[in-house]
Amino acid sequence: MNVDGQPYRTIWLNDDGNTVSVIDQTLLPHRFKIVKWRTVEDVAAGIRNMVVRGAPLIGASAGYGIALGMLGDPSDKGFQRAYELLLASRPTAVNLRWALDRMQGTLLPLDPNDRATQAFTTAAKICDEDVSNCSAIGEYGRSLIEQAWDNTGRSRPVNLLTHCNAGWLATVDWGTALAPIYKAFDAGVPVHVWVDETRPRNQGASLTAWELGQHGVPHTVIVDNAGGHLMQQGYVDLCIVGSDRTTGSGDVCNKIGTYLKALAARDNQVPFYVALPLSTIDWTIDDGIKSIPIETRSPEEVVNISGITKEGEVCDVRLTPERSAALNYAFDVTRRHLVTSLITEYGAFRTIPEEMAKLRQKAEQADL
Amino acid sequence: MNVDGQPYRTIWLNDDGNTVSVIDQTLLPHRFKIVKWRTVEDVAAGIRNMVVRGAPLIGASAGYGIALGMLGDPSDKGFQRAYELLLASRPTAVNLRWALDRMQGTLLPLDPNDRATQAFTTAAKICDEDVSNCSAIGEYGRSLIEQAWDNTGRSRPVNLLTHCNAGWLATVDWGTALAPIYKAFDAGVPVHVWVDETRPRNQGASLTAWELGQHGVPHTVIVDNAGGHLMQQGYVDLCIVGSDRTTGSGDVCNKIGTYLKALAARDNQVPFYVALPLSTIDWTIDDGIKSIPIETRSPEEVVNISGITKEGEVCDVRLTPERSAALNYAFDVTRRHLVTSLITEYGAFRTIPEEMAKLRQKAEQADL
Repeated sequence: MNVDGQPYRTIWLNDDGNTVSVIDQTLLPHRFKIVKWRTVEDVAAGIRNMVVRGAPLIGASAGYGIALGMLGDPSDKGFQRAYELLLASRPTAVNLRWALDRMQGTLLPLDPNDRATQAFTTAAKICDEDVSNCSAIGEYGRSLIEQAWDNTGRSRPVNLLTHCNAGWLATVDWGTALAPIYKAFDAGVPVHVWVDETRPRNQGASLTAWELGQHGVPHTVIVDNAGGHLMQQGYVDLCIVGSDRTTGSGDVCNKIGTYLKALAARDNQVPFYVALPLSTIDWTIDDGIKSIPIETRSPEEVVNISGITKEGEVCDVRLTPERSAALNYAFDVTRRHLVTSLITEYGAFRTIPEEMAKLRQKAEQADL
Repeated sequence: MNVDGQPYRTIWLNDDGNTVSVIDQTLLPHRFKIVKWRTVEDVAAGIRNMVVRGAPLIGASAGYGIALGMLGDPSDKGFQRAYELLLASRPTAVNLRWALDRMQGTLLPLDPNDRATQAFTTAAKICDEDVSNCSAIGEYGRSLIEQAWDNTGRSRPVNLLTHCNAGWLATVDWGTALAPIYKAFDAGVPVHVWVDETRPRNQGASLTAWELGQHGVPHTVIVDNAGGHLMQQGYVDLCIVGSDRTTGSGDVCNKIGTYLKALAARDNQVPFYVALPLSTIDWTIDDGIKSIPIETRSPEEVVNISGITKEGEVCDVRLTPERSAALNYAFDVTRRHLVTSLITEYGAFRTIPEEMAKLRQKAEQADL
């Protein structure tokens, strides 16, 4: 999508053929900075420190991480080291393991001398497939937004609410939850997006607001507490969020707080959509609350917050009393019955057993 | 309650008899500073700028504001000026008008020369009654916490969740939602409090965490997004919040985000209690969503946040991109059916028509 009028992806191979560049998402929205990765260690640190984040982009980064690792040491041992280093960089994202396993399946049968070249090819393919999947999600989602517009008699903009950042910054391009919004906006459907701030890391206030603003999409930042009131007052036509991991039955694990918005949506008869590529569905598990381990991140993320001073300096400030403890769960699980549909690259599927079975068939055909 | 081992109220008449002191709550939790009020203008500015906040404390402050005004000009015109100045200082709090009307009923029949002395007496009475009401709320609520402890077989601490600050800092002493927790803690019931940060003004992270910490009550700060997950996992035994205004049928208007926690509590069979003095019930209205005007505050509260730097300097930082709009609703309404009981100074009442009728009778007997 566009940054200041210029089209970007979130990750790309540089012309030198042996370094990879990404947008440093820890500095947004205050600074737009490109970071260059040279080694697998750079990539693992980048994933761990959330220079890149979002399940699909983590997968794509892992692909390039292996490729950079193969440049250094293409042996089986070198591969294993790179694989494990990257796998340990974030515990929850299923795309990370998926991408690593795909790299493994492609590379290990090859002669070590051929691995680096093939690794870059496969990493690029992972990126291109992600763009094509997100674009398809966008098209299927766009028709749901157009429907909502029709429901208003095309009399006013469609009001959407989103949580966290499942925009193009979370993927290689287009995004998942935001792809339908970009597609609708580009097609001339008037939209307005309520952007949940998304504490503690404020991905909504910093990333979603930034990327929507850069693309010209009307939006308003709200605190995470506000969405229920907005829905109660009829100010939200539909919710769209992304997913870090979805179970085979349709339980959705996403950024902490998603569950609260899904409850409010149900209480006010607002459709609640989850946009995701099929690769984020984990068919091996069924009960999301029992089976998905929830990452606990540093309490420092709750206690401190980063912003920009009036003088233009990016700095951290502490919010809580020195003696108070804090706890920081990164995700929560929204039960299938609160989710209206899953919007995938194969269409929108209701979270009922028959449709989930159809979705699984699609996944098996696509070998996911 | 205690600050650094020393007992405090939030507001008191100084020994000089003509100045009033309060804790400056805008500087907490980073600085503990006492502010001295000399004039009614000082009080109005203090209420407007949230040096004091919380419905009961605003009422008590208004009482002393009138008293300080009477020191300056005890004429009818002087009273009217003080009354109007104070009434305009915050739009939503029903206690503000209640306290002002009480001062008016007491003072206007008197000779102007007698008004100042009587005003200080009545203001002190408002404070003492608030302390006694909060203490009674605390006792009734304590027994509910003890019940929850019994339900665990007294095997582990009772986990409570609260939103915003309805502690002693919001009242003259004890608090409303936190009074039961202090009473239980003082009685030796092991408790642990999940403190919702409460964006955008962070009253939880700054005030609730501070006052619980000063009194020694175990607590953990969480972002507003986390409560649903905690309830889903069984980590919350009960929720207690305060109320800025409750309708005659039991709809509760409280800090924005309360409604989302109430939905999560119902979804997970967690009792959801609202602690409030009877004076915050507005018997003239029934439907909270239709009838309670919701204050919209400055978007600056969403866009900027205040904290303390590593160097110990309190400063504001901006969180959002420069071009992004923000919207800031201060309260939301939780429907009566999501509220287990209202804990008042007359006991705990379920939000069903028969019990609300009993509560109204109590209020009428007490002439509220």
